[in-house]
Amino acid sequence: MARKAAIIGGGVIGGGWAARFLLNGWDVAVFDPDPQAERKIGEVLANARAALPALSDVPMPAEGRLSFAGTVTEAVEGASYIQESVSERLDLKHRVFAQIQQVAPGVLIGSSTSGFKPSQLQENAPDPGMIFVAHPFNPVYLLPLAEVVPSPANPPEAIEKAKEILREIGMFPLHVRKEIDAHIADRFLEAVWREALWLVKDGIATTEEIDEAIRMGFGLRWGQMGLFETYRVAGGEAGMKHFMAQFGPCLQWPWTKLTDVPEFNDELVDLIAGQSDAQSGAYTIRELERIRDGNLIGFLRALKDRNWGAGRVLRDHDERRRTAFREAEATGAPLVMAQMQVLPGWIDYNGHMTESRYLFAASETSDAFLRLIGSDMDYVASGFSYYTAESHIMHLGEARLGDRLTGTLQVLAADEKRLHIFIRILKGDAPVATIEQMLLHVDMKAGRSVPAAAQVLDRLMPIARAHQALPRPEAAGRFTGQRKG
Amino acid sequence: MARKAAIIGGGVIGGGWAARFLLNGWDVAVFDPDPQAERKIGEVLANARAALPALSDVPMPAEGRLSFAGTVTEAVEGASYIQESVSERLDLKHRVFAQIQQVAPGVLIGSSTSGFKPSQLQENAPDPGMIFVAHPFNPVYLLPLAEVVPSPANPPEAIEKAKEILREIGMFPLHVRKEIDAHIADRFLEAVWREALWLVKDGIATTEEIDEAIRMGFGLRWGQMGLFETYRVAGGEAGMKHFMAQFGPCLQWPWTKLTDVPEFNDELVDLIAGQSDAQSGAYTIRELERIRDGNLIGFLRALKDRNWGAGRVLRDHDERRRTAFREAEATGAPLVMAQMQVLPGWIDYNGHMTESRYLFAASETSDAFLRLIGSDMDYVASGFSYYTAESHIMHLGEARLGDRLTGTLQVLAADEKRLHIFIRILKGDAPVATIEQMLLHVDMKAGRSVPAAAQVLDRLMPIARAHQALPRPEAAGRFTGQRKG
Repeated sequence: MARKAAIIGGGVIGGGWAARFLLNGWDVAVFDPDPQAERKIGEVLANARAALPALSDVPMPAEGRLSFAGTVTEAVEGASYIQESVSERLDLKHRVFAQIQQVAPGVLIGSSTSGFKPSQLQENAPDPGMIFVAHPFNPVYLLPLAEVVPSPANPPEAIEKAKEILREIGMFPLHVRKEIDAHIADRFLEAVWREALWLVKDGIATTEEIDEAIRMGFGLRWGQMGLFETYRVAGGEAGMKHFMAQFGPCLQWPWTKLTDVPEFNDELVDLIAGQSDAQSGAYTIRELERIRDGNLIGFLRALKDRNWGAGRVLRDHDERRRTAFREAEATGAPLVMAQMQVLPGWIDYNGHMTESRYLFAASETSDAFLRLIGSDMDYVASGFSYYTAESHIMHLGEARLGDRLTGTLQVLAADEKRLHIFIRILKGDAPVATIEQMLLHVDMKAGRSVPAAAQVLDRLMPIARAHQALPRPEAAGRFTGQRKG
Repeated sequence: MARKAAIIGGGVIGGGWAARFLLNGWDVAVFDPDPQAERKIGEVLANARAALPALSDVPMPAEGRLSFAGTVTEAVEGASYIQESVSERLDLKHRVFAQIQQVAPGVLIGSSTSGFKPSQLQENAPDPGMIFVAHPFNPVYLLPLAEVVPSPANPPEAIEKAKEILREIGMFPLHVRKEIDAHIADRFLEAVWREALWLVKDGIATTEEIDEAIRMGFGLRWGQMGLFETYRVAGGEAGMKHFMAQFGPCLQWPWTKLTDVPEFNDELVDLIAGQSDAQSGAYTIRELERIRDGNLIGFLRALKDRNWGAGRVLRDHDERRRTAFREAEATGAPLVMAQMQVLPGWIDYNGHMTESRYLFAASETSDAFLRLIGSDMDYVASGFSYYTAESHIMHLGEARLGDRLTGTLQVLAADEKRLHIFIRILKGDAPVATIEQMLLHVDMKAGRSVPAAAQVLDRLMPIARAHQALPRPEAAGRFTGQRKG
């Protein structure tokens, strides 16, 4: 049965949390007295549904059930985890925690606060050890970071459990070992914000020019390596010490110059709001959200391809869920070997599934078949494997975003060394592509084809014989460009 | 004839400038008295050669000629543009400018200084109006930003000419209208650096934790939207004014707390260098450079797909060069359409490139070809496209992690509706796979094949005719499982 998360406070941040839990299969109850809360959460959820699956190479679990509770008490009933995202007012947060702990003592409560320390949140609470900071970043459904900040009052095992739950919903819990105002990331954001306000106020740069100065240069560096590793590379082979020796003294001088605080008044607000309108006003906020999400998906998939930074978090998340989706069953005629869904990341600019994803779908199908006959990871580790020597693809239909696809496999012929297969990628009953492949069984070390092991052939051959009774597919044996007839 | 750029100072930054000019077809003369300069430039250039072409969908021009000059005078002789990247010492820069302008008055001199104002650089110069700041970001061959900072002494037309040259080598010149210490971007870098030093010194976070706090969250946001646009989106439909009204007062309070300066001493240097070793010491700097470059290529290509931010700069750069390429395109040789590298995400459990990635590599190749003949995003938006009807793949070799692959395309046959192509995926000179494809030109709305537009056929047909002279590939016309012979 699905576990339940309670989301107290349903704005952009609370909505992002709700979406992460729901899309990872948790039930979610939201409490927010704002009459607009349901609409707002719905908008965040719509964005998340279009975005988060694009990062996954494992089918998403069935979405959890979303409900809106009339009271805090109702929301937290039966919850295994509670996330508080109400306004940044300490008295309000204290009231919420008291209400929660009256009915749900011993349940973890993460706070989305960007400024308060956990020890401040815990003041006068019935069960302070369950309250900690879990500070996410907008859009919560895409960015993996959650700063997890405990105080000495939190039992370490409670914090470890919280981190495990955050990992389960695909996040990267960064354990902040000492509590401090604004945790870590927001201190940087404030330092930059303060400097940016000065630059705008003094007429040095517009909001647009500042954004370009960030996103055309160091913003790209920081998205994948952060600050110190970037500078380590800049320092060259001599390393970080050399970098600091070289640049440290230079930096010392202006340090004292960038620290004044501009007066925060209507004039400054109008100046910035006006420049921002000129810069971005051609897009609605909804459009900008979708643009931002698309860009972030692109960045995250690029990192996932490279198993680096946030991309490594995505891979770990896939791996954790992969075991839950073990293969479909193998009886009867063409074997149903894979069930897939067309993800946003599989779509090209035509709105169709990209060409190479059809072969990817075929690989998913044949990999499952190879596992079925015992040519699995352990077999490969012993030095043997099936290699694809040749493929012929017929594109017969179009798959689009969200389509559910089935991969079936028919053995055309098999002997000790060769495996000739025919894969159909079906949408409903209609094939969108067929893939004919010749696989060779190889001794990977010797680099040549050899007979497969007896235990593999013992599983393969009965299937091959059974499939001889199946009609031979019309597309088998075609060459590219051959006229129909 | 190729124009010439003179690079004065040949470290990582000077080397990056040299690489940008060379790879964009300029001749480059470098002056640097360091006996290691030639080796250092060579290393930067090797990285750049592996990286910059991966961002291009138009074949690169012939690389310019690199020479090393014994004197400043020799380096700048005949140069159309001069870039100074010597150490950050004002007296040294003044001496260099005096030497240059003795023999090359009237030639633009961009300075890579990250701290000095142009009016400081221009002091006592023979021709101050030619000296300005062109501040790039490491790696210079990948990041598009160059802060262009003039003083009132610079004639506006000189600055416009400088910006046009920077655009020609694929950069984004950000015109900083008022000179100021550290220009724009480095002021942010300093603010963050100062805050980061505090956090490490006070034991709040390690260098690794700080890097994670950046790259798992706001770093990803900033790489594509910067600061203000990100906050505009966070503010919701009510816009920037609402965001500031909501969050401004909250931020005001800690502003005064983050501005102290930690003492810069050996203890702090050792602390940071030691943490950095623990964080990143498993990789050499060369490895980190390649990882960084791979990640940046992924980000930049993601943005290019979406025509946003730095990706828009890449598209403009392609467009500028596409015209130059067309004159040379219709020679009788398979077209080199794609340069790729095998990424960790392309590898299967055998340690080889996964099957579907061979077709992915073919798609990269054919997509670039389709863009070349004008079947690009705009054409697709008008309702027409080429669809792949059929593919035949021959697997001939193995690609492994890090291998560099080249995709070449030969047109086997083409008529108004059909495009029959043969793609080779090469590792060095040896094909690892060949892919024969039949594409049909379709009216997407009507869902049937129709003749391509005249402007597409006008580009396609001369190439198809030229390719008739090429030998027909042996693998063309094969069916799957066909015996060799």
